Amino acid sequence: MKITDIKDPSFLKDLSVEQLEDLSDDIRRFLIESVSKTGGHLASNLGVVELTVALHKSFDSPKDKIFFDVGHQCYVHKILTGRAKDFSSLRQYKGISGFQKRSESEHDVWEAGHSSTSLSAALGMAVARDLNHEDYQIIPVIGDGALESGMSLEALNEIGDENRRMIIIFNDNHMSISENVGFLSKSFARLRISPLYTALKQDLKSGLKKTQFGKTLFSRLANMKGTIRDMVVNGGIFEEFGLDYLGPIDGHNMKDLLKALGTAKEKAQDHTVVVHVCTEKGKGYKPCENDQTGKWHGVGPFDIKTGKPLKVQNPDETSWSAVMADHLSDLARKNRDIVCLTPAMKVGSKLENFFREFPDRSFDTGIAEEHAATMAAGLAVSGKRPYLCVYSTFLQRAYDQLNHDICRMDLPVVIGIDRAGIVGHDGATHHGVFDIGMLRALPHMIIAEGKDADEAQKLLNTAFAQKHPFAVRYPRGNTRKPADVTDETTVPVGSWEVFGEISKDIPVICTYGPNVRRVQKLLEEHGIRADVVNCRFFKPLDEEVMETLCRIQPELIVYETDMKAEGLGSAMMEWANDHGYTLMMKDTGIGDHYVTHGDQASVEKEEGLDPEALLKFLM
Amino acid sequence: MKITDIKDPSFLKDLSVEQLEDLSDDIRRFLIESVSKTGGHLASNLGVVELTVALHKSFDSPKDKIFFDVGHQCYVHKILTGRAKDFSSLRQYKGISGFQKRSESEHDVWEAGHSSTSLSAALGMAVARDLNHEDYQIIPVIGDGALESGMSLEALNEIGDENRRMIIIFNDNHMSISENVGFLSKSFARLRISPLYTALKQDLKSGLKKTQFGKTLFSRLANMKGTIRDMVVNGGIFEEFGLDYLGPIDGHNMKDLLKALGTAKEKAQDHTVVVHVCTEKGKGYKPCENDQTGKWHGVGPFDIKTGKPLKVQNPDETSWSAVMADHLSDLARKNRDIVCLTPAMKVGSKLENFFREFPDRSFDTGIAEEHAATMAAGLAVSGKRPYLCVYSTFLQRAYDQLNHDICRMDLPVVIGIDRAGIVGHDGATHHGVFDIGMLRALPHMIIAEGKDADEAQKLLNTAFAQKHPFAVRYPRGNTRKPADVTDETTVPVGSWEVFGEISKDIPVICTYGPNVRRVQKLLEEHGIRADVVNCRFFKPLDEEVMETLCRIQPELIVYETDMKAEGLGSAMMEWANDHGYTLMMKDTGIGDHYVTHGDQASVEKEEGLDPEALLKFLM
Repeated sequence: MKITDIKDPSFLKDLSVEQLEDLSDDIRRFLIESVSKTGGHLASNLGVVELTVALHKSFDSPKDKIFFDVGHQCYVHKILTGRAKDFSSLRQYKGISGFQKRSESEHDVWEAGHSSTSLSAALGMAVARDLNHEDYQIIPVIGDGALESGMSLEALNEIGDENRRMIIIFNDNHMSISENVGFLSKSFARLRISPLYTALKQDLKSGLKKTQFGKTLFSRLANMKGTIRDMVVNGGIFEEFGLDYLGPIDGHNMKDLLKALGTAKEKAQDHTVVVHVCTEKGKGYKPCENDQTGKWHGVGPFDIKTGKPLKVQNPDETSWSAVMADHLSDLARKNRDIVCLTPAMKVGSKLENFFREFPDRSFDTGIAEEHAATMAAGLAVSGKRPYLCVYSTFLQRAYDQLNHDICRMDLPVVIGIDRAGIVGHDGATHHGVFDIGMLRALPHMIIAEGKDADEAQKLLNTAFAQKHPFAVRYPRGNTRKPADVTDETTVPVGSWEVFGEISKDIPVICTYGPNVRRVQKLLEEHGIRADVVNCRFFKPLDEEVMETLCRIQPELIVYETDMKAEGLGSAMMEWANDHGYTLMMKDTGIGDHYVTHGDQASVEKEEGLDPEALLKFLM
Repeated sequence: MKITDIKDPSFLKDLSVEQLEDLSDDIRRFLIESVSKTGGHLASNLGVVELTVALHKSFDSPKDKIFFDVGHQCYVHKILTGRAKDFSSLRQYKGISGFQKRSESEHDVWEAGHSSTSLSAALGMAVARDLNHEDYQIIPVIGDGALESGMSLEALNEIGDENRRMIIIFNDNHMSISENVGFLSKSFARLRISPLYTALKQDLKSGLKKTQFGKTLFSRLANMKGTIRDMVVNGGIFEEFGLDYLGPIDGHNMKDLLKALGTAKEKAQDHTVVVHVCTEKGKGYKPCENDQTGKWHGVGPFDIKTGKPLKVQNPDETSWSAVMADHLSDLARKNRDIVCLTPAMKVGSKLENFFREFPDRSFDTGIAEEHAATMAAGLAVSGKRPYLCVYSTFLQRAYDQLNHDICRMDLPVVIGIDRAGIVGHDGATHHGVFDIGMLRALPHMIIAEGKDADEAQKLLNTAFAQKHPFAVRYPRGNTRKPADVTDETTVPVGSWEVFGEISKDIPVICTYGPNVRRVQKLLEEHGIRADVVNCRFFKPLDEEVMETLCRIQPELIVYETDMKAEGLGSAMMEWANDHGYTLMMKDTGIGDHYVTHGDQASVEKEEGLDPEALLKFLM
């Protein structure tokens, strides 16, 4: 069967183990081929080929609810549910999503993008099913990194208490995005090296339970906590949550998988069963298999033979992440109080060099944004200068900690907000467009964004030169390399930069970040005369410039590329009104909806956020 | 020694066990006496009298860092650090705070108010200490309810991995605010009933370690996992996090406490030790001891003899919480799809009757706001109508889940936001003044507040009659009882209520919630003519009324009593600007700072939020 001909998973029912293995190989080839062209999440999907095939063989989707935590490892699920034919459009504008999407298929029963939501969702679904007296299985698939997040542990705590019919697939690949951290990963490792859950082990267990003698022996084993018990019963952390544990299973052995899922299905009629499946990220594709750092987590188009990315990096450019991380290293060489924390974004935010150079001052907390933010507060009350590096979209997880633990005590925590603004292919769950509104109402918080790498560095200098919570946001993607990575210049907090001389007769465009240069280029190309204000602080605003604008040119153009509600324009109106002025703004910004996925240019165009959209205000 | 004469904890060093016991009794009497006048958190503080005395005897504050998770159980700590003399002003306006406050004392090294931050903070402090090569102990005290929250578990995960010098006091009183939930509480119960950690047990353990034979035996015991091992080594969940566990200790036995803390001090030279202390909430005061529901968690002034509150409830009034909870019950009788979730606010939000009447449709998730919100989403994707009841200030913990799991999928989750607005005595960590700005930028979100109980009920009806995320906020405290609890009327989504006829010559005051009546009363009392708009939806705004206001009376008065930034006035300006209008508003609201504690009236006056503050706009 051609992979692209698959309509739904029902055909799996008729396949033998051998045929399922062959199918898995075909899917793996298809995945590598396809993702090499579109880019996407490859390693995690290669790791779950056999597992996903076995799940769809063993259960009846969409009646049974199979879904994936985060969801970037749902490609095989998409293929088996009839979407292989659309894979050339994966993550492209108007194409299929890189995540589960309820509007795409009835087989996608849950949507995510942020980690660790699947167990809470599964419990909600189980309660709904039971209240409706319906009869189906609920099967969340969750990785080890996601399982260590507080939200998952909260869910496990209640799942253990409720103990409803559910099968949790614990997809253990010994790493979340990059290597795992925290003590639980050691607990998982201990479980992992316990004897594999094979036919033999299961037979021993069910054999024991068949006779009264066996039952007694089994219950004694369960109380004994010894090596034998470990082999048969011990479930580490899962046991502490009262959950029936089954594993570990070799996640690339189809026969073992089917056997274990069959047993789980049988057992989980009236309670929750955890199936511990060990998989290998990148399985079957050498460059991926050898990846120790997580750089194959999400990739752009690449050459299959070499594994090398197809897009050649412009030598004058570097990533925004690298600009900030390298400058942080430079600052940390001079200021021994700087400590860096990141919740699982060491690789994505290019902090590897920092971690290597300052191992004692580097903390990857795993997927634990809340803990990371408050740990930063703990460092700050003790006189340290923590730098908390988080993607904008994930910073949402720490809103309360930013508010009550950092801002309320007015602590000098510097927050590097990576991937701010529209991020492109990852879509609605990953756009970093809420942070300005999220942070702006927090007292003591300073929020800034630089127009280019040089200014971003100056803002980072400024952040460490003052004593309040200070967030520097910067976008995804590349920028021109900074002139001098060791630059120590600061800028006055709350100062904007005015290009031109504000006057009544010349339009003024207020904007921020890389938009400043884009607007200047647009004006130049179209020979339009307008002043440009680089509003590099969202909070506090530049009071002097605001006063001038309000008095001389209150009919402004505000070019913003994040959520319009509560954004820069809104802040400017608030200031004006508080000071007895009124502004009349032509304002871009994202309306009251979530933004789709696709290449940056197409998404911006759809949202009316491309610089060209300004022309209608200017002509 | 008179309790009010205590200057600092140094005098404890010279006291015998017996004297410490006497002191504990004195402190307990002082606490009951004092809190009976001021109100405050009584039960939790009575539970930690001996523990806090023992901690300050065993360690050297402020060099050693002793601090309390949440902090409402820090009264004994305040007494021992010289603040007993100020207890008559506890939680009063300009008086001492009911929580730890760094500005109050050098002995208050951390501030909180929301639970489960202490372990993350402690790790941050430990890292700072170690980087500075300083020499002191760090001792967070955390209760069982707080420990079950995801944030604490995230912290334990990294603490286990780092294993730095620290002593975690696990203050186990078998309940958080009311009874505990989740499977971990069962695990804790198992630990609790294991043989008490007394002198004997410790002697066995240290005796064993003294000889080579003993050491070998001990390490064999540690590997053996049997009953003996349980007695000596087993640490339940703490063991899964790799932590050295010591306990359980009788938290009201001074001798055992001192012995255990001594051992912990000795052991925790180079790693983390958990000391499991079992305490009894309300210990030593009968009405408190007998409380099974948590109503003694936070109390107003009461009669010591009877335990009855001094304030007599007006029979025409009831709490806002009861209005909403009772009406929810009424709705749930008719709509079997309604399911209620609350993260540990069953008692506070008066949901006990609902839980009793609909046990299958009621879920107290414990202190797990993130999980609760996403579980609600899981219920909603399965066709249920979840009602998520959370205090405004704690809803902050679920910002990301509200955004990405509820609003992004546009799920019909109804959110009851209890304690919205200024809450009074609990102060900065508890005022519910951020939620409007927090929620307003989220697509699909509807946000409403009723002017009185009747309207709040109508809004709840409306919420369940439509299919989007819908938040109904309501304040702390009492209100006039609703006319008819079974009322099924709805109001159009986004409709405001105009009292008067908007005209150019009459001032217009836009406000919301109970402020509507307060403003009307003010106008009446002063014989002032003004129109009042009940802006009962913060989102969406009433477009028709907005249009009328913009055209006829753009010079508005906006009376808001939450954060001014991103609040109602800001939303109105955004709408006006988008539609080609400008508003010129006189706007109240809380400025860019955190709000202090005290009685509602004093706090409102300080913030310029009392209705009288409007007079300057009107005369």
